[in-house]
Amino acid sequence: MSPEALKKHLQTLVPEHTFVADPEPLFTDQRRRYRSRNALALMPDSVENVQKIMRFCHEHRIPVTPQGGNTGLVGGSVAQGGVLLNLSRLNRVRRISLPDNAITVEAGCTLAQVQAAAQQIGRLFPLDLASAGSCQIGGNIACNAGGLNVLRYGTMRDLVLGLEVVLADGTLLSHLEPLHKNTTGYDIKHLFIGSEGTLGIITAAALKLFARPRQTATAWVGVRDIAQALDLLTSVRDAFAGRLLSCELLSRFALDLSARHSKIPQPLDAEWHLLLELDDSLPEPPLETALGEHLYAHGFADAVLAQSEAQRRDLWTLRENVSAAQRSLGVSIKHDIALPIERLADFVQNCGRRLAEALPAVQIVVFGHLGDGSLHYNTFLPDTLDNRAYQREDEINRLVYQQVLAHGGSIAAEHGIGRLKTAHLPSVRAPAEIALMRAIKAQLDPHGILNAGVLFA
Amino acid sequence: MSPEALKKHLQTLVPEHTFVADPEPLFTDQRRRYRSRNALALMPDSVENVQKIMRFCHEHRIPVTPQGGNTGLVGGSVAQGGVLLNLSRLNRVRRISLPDNAITVEAGCTLAQVQAAAQQIGRLFPLDLASAGSCQIGGNIACNAGGLNVLRYGTMRDLVLGLEVVLADGTLLSHLEPLHKNTTGYDIKHLFIGSEGTLGIITAAALKLFARPRQTATAWVGVRDIAQALDLLTSVRDAFAGRLLSCELLSRFALDLSARHSKIPQPLDAEWHLLLELDDSLPEPPLETALGEHLYAHGFADAVLAQSEAQRRDLWTLRENVSAAQRSLGVSIKHDIALPIERLADFVQNCGRRLAEALPAVQIVVFGHLGDGSLHYNTFLPDTLDNRAYQREDEINRLVYQQVLAHGGSIAAEHGIGRLKTAHLPSVRAPAEIALMRAIKAQLDPHGILNAGVLFA
Ligand SMILES: Cc1cc2nc3c(=O)[nH]c(=O)nc-3n(C[C@H](O)[C@H](O)[C@H](O)COP(=O)(O)OP(=O)(O)OC[C@H]3O[C@@H](n4cnc5c(N)ncnc54)[C@H](O)[C@@H]3O)c2cc1C
Ligand SMILES: Cc1cc2nc3c(=O)[nH]c(=O)nc-3n(C[C@H](O)[C@H](O)[C@H](O)COP(=O)(O)OP(=O)(O)OC[C@H]3O[C@@H](n4cnc5c(N)ncnc54)[C@H](O)[C@@H]3O)c2cc1C
Repeated sequence: MSPEALKKHLQTLVPEHTFVADPEPLFTDQRRRYRSRNALALMPDSVENVQKIMRFCHEHRIPVTPQGGNTGLVGGSVAQGGVLLNLSRLNRVRRISLPDNAITVEAGCTLAQVQAAAQQIGRLFPLDLASAGSCQIGGNIACNAGGLNVLRYGTMRDLVLGLEVVLADGTLLSHLEPLHKNTTGYDIKHLFIGSEGTLGIITAAALKLFARPRQTATAWVGVRDIAQALDLLTSVRDAFAGRLLSCELLSRFALDLSARHSKIPQPLDAEWHLLLELDDSLPEPPLETALGEHLYAHGFADAVLAQSEAQRRDLWTLRENVSAAQRSLGVSIKHDIALPIERLADFVQNCGRRLAEALPAVQIVVFGHLGDGSLHYNTFLPDTLDNRAYQREDEINRLVYQQVLAHGGSIAAEHGIGRLKTAHLPSVRAPAEIALMRAIKAQLDPHGILNAGVLFA
Repeated sequence: MSPEALKKHLQTLVPEHTFVADPEPLFTDQRRRYRSRNALALMPDSVENVQKIMRFCHEHRIPVTPQGGNTGLVGGSVAQGGVLLNLSRLNRVRRISLPDNAITVEAGCTLAQVQAAAQQIGRLFPLDLASAGSCQIGGNIACNAGGLNVLRYGTMRDLVLGLEVVLADGTLLSHLEPLHKNTTGYDIKHLFIGSEGTLGIITAAALKLFARPRQTATAWVGVRDIAQALDLLTSVRDAFAGRLLSCELLSRFALDLSARHSKIPQPLDAEWHLLLELDDSLPEPPLETALGEHLYAHGFADAVLAQSEAQRRDLWTLRENVSAAQRSLGVSIKHDIALPIERLADFVQNCGRRLAEALPAVQIVVFGHLGDGSLHYNTFLPDTLDNRAYQREDEINRLVYQQVLAHGGSIAAEHGIGRLKTAHLPSVRAPAEIALMRAIKAQLDPHGILNAGVLFA
């Protein structure tokens, strides 16, 4: 059905303001690699209207692509025909319960909005991504977003207490009670988390809240190699337990780039660098002292402890600017990967060697969240300062993913499979699992209208 | 097939020691309400042998009931014909990784064994049940066990990083790498967690470890009502965050019973009682001081802080002995329920009133884990000091469950549905969910050999 014909039909079902007047900005994905085609953009303002739309689309076999903030990095929110269902207008905070330490929000709330709502009542919603201002809770759940605070708080999956979902045929499933113990049959919630819009439209979620920090300690530490970094991570975690919030790793090369780009002096000279951050809900005694003593006792007398908020910001800027700084190397082929932390050093060594063998000119920028095992592993070919780098993309991907799998890792740590990685799904999931995934999909979406082309090739 | 005929066939496939010489002790369930009938008990000593057994049973449509420590409370591990597959011999610790803070164990390890293995390397595996010495990791996962430390560490579901499972047809699925970020399609692991043996045989799991505590602070606090208890819970959680380990609630009546039974004086006089425990990985400064100050500042000047390990044990004995003490009231009808914490007070009031209206002589013992919303809600009819109480069981259950659901709670918080509660499943899961559960079951176990009669009626 053409967008125009579709609109005619739907006009009898949902109010006029549901139809997006200027849909163009919604049609291109974040990385400008995918575009919606031949689609009608809708922004329903109620769950009932989502249900009406789904009922109609189910009956008439119209494809539906859910879209949140459209910040996804694997092309999951572009529509190939049918309806592009943008959830932005379902953006109310429905309920906050302090005794349950929980907040119930609609899927279209931006992550920043939920963080702010939590802060307003003196609590923390800990998921944090650089895209927080635009990405939405529905998208965060659909992608099982990760980000900066996974070491302590887990991924989005760990933060969801309950979901409300509209199924492909318009049926509403609602389990929004903030229950911490509930064992009544298979846990279906976890199927929707990470399903990338292929199983249902998430319309609301009950989320966990946490105590807000009242002090922070930040340290920059130089280490010989990743093995030494792991020893330090292990000892800090043993001593400080849940206080450890971040343990970020940068290679010498990554820091060089970032320091030059940021015009901030390097805190110290070393092969590898760690940025540690701890915080505490109790304001006293100073964590900084305890962390300093721990580092000293473990042989890191030259570690730099941030003495002011300005210095702390500088250290984080060095970490955060790696992405921007590396652009001077040309177009990068990026990898969203995770590894068992124990095998991370071997991976870096072996994958680096393989890449150098295959592509002698390759430059590799390695940094990431050591504490949760996820790495930004970015490769550059200096002779291709433009999009021609993408011509080598498949080759590089194949090589990197092969090494990731050989070291027990994940080829899609936090961005999902989307349209970008469907070809790789069979290399990471057994046939019996893919058969089960397809059976689940067929049961919930018998006509296959939800996000066809995403997840499954 | 008779157990004898079955044995003949299987003898050609698995070694003789797989056949349990004296199966009698495995055949009756923990509460002596269910019995295995007409079953052959097997204790395979390798994953390969589990696969061989399953392949055979799948091919010949032989029912299989997985069994761990047989401590489950809902009749899930009794076999009605076919094979009773006891996992006790699969009990190796396969791997420990300090950088990943993870331990990989086989399903037949007892919980106590895993706790001990963690302790040996200076770490904590935090799941804790009174049945720890007998229950097994496979059973804990199959039931999504809860227990004492859910407030801080979550249920078993939250502690599992990866699973190894033998499917009904003998296929091995293995994802034991300790990955903290991995979003590659639907998360099938979470289907097996809490599936009560109906989807596959769990043979091993990668589990999270935590820092061990180096100090503990324990306080007994009297409160006017549950509302005041919630205010205190909220403020303690806000101040101490992850340090709060337990927040247990007892009614005056529950404490009266336990104090008399335990011959320990009541710490203080109040309508409701809270037992708070906090701990910390850092040995200094003393948590006890901070907790004492917090309680004082919040108007609980008469709170009792344990001054010695002996006093701490006494306080916990008062809490733990409620179960034993209440036996003096007769046979109890127990309920494994959870509620949104915010609605717990209303539930206690409304359910108490309804029960008193229906059964004027009823006595109710209320205690439980306030911090995670789960309650022991035990009812006694004083005129029935023997098993005749069970004659009223259905009536009482119906009334209590109705109130639980009216207050947004769960009728099976941590023990599962088993055989005991199958009739209630349709009251807590929507038809679309049950249809999905059945589709998942049909895909993974097309001949329905795994634990028929459990979960689904
Ligand atoms: C600058 C930047 C930094 C980022 N950093 C991180 C990071 O650190 N960690 C990380 O994990 N990701 C990161 N991302 C990726 C992205 O922000 C996350 O994947 C985010 O969760 C996507 O949310 P969204 O609302 O934008 O979803 P969209 O991009 O709109 O959609 C993503 C997928 O979810 C589906 N979907 C969206 N909403 C719903 C719904 N309500 N119901 C069902 N399905 C739905 C879509 O169909 C699509 O498949 C980053 C992106 C940018 C641009
Ligand atoms: C004194 C006592 C205190 C208890 N306290 C608590 C408590 O605080 N919290 C709590 O949650 N529970 C508690 N329980 C209940 C029980 O201990 C838990 O449910 C435990 O997780 C069951 O483990 P198990 O190995 O004994 O399983 P079993 O009783 O052997 O089996 C339970 C279910 O799991 C399935 N199963 C077992 N092993 C496997 C496997 N390897 N693969 C697939 N399926 C399998 C069985 O088929 C059955 O359906 C308590 C029980 C007792 C007796």
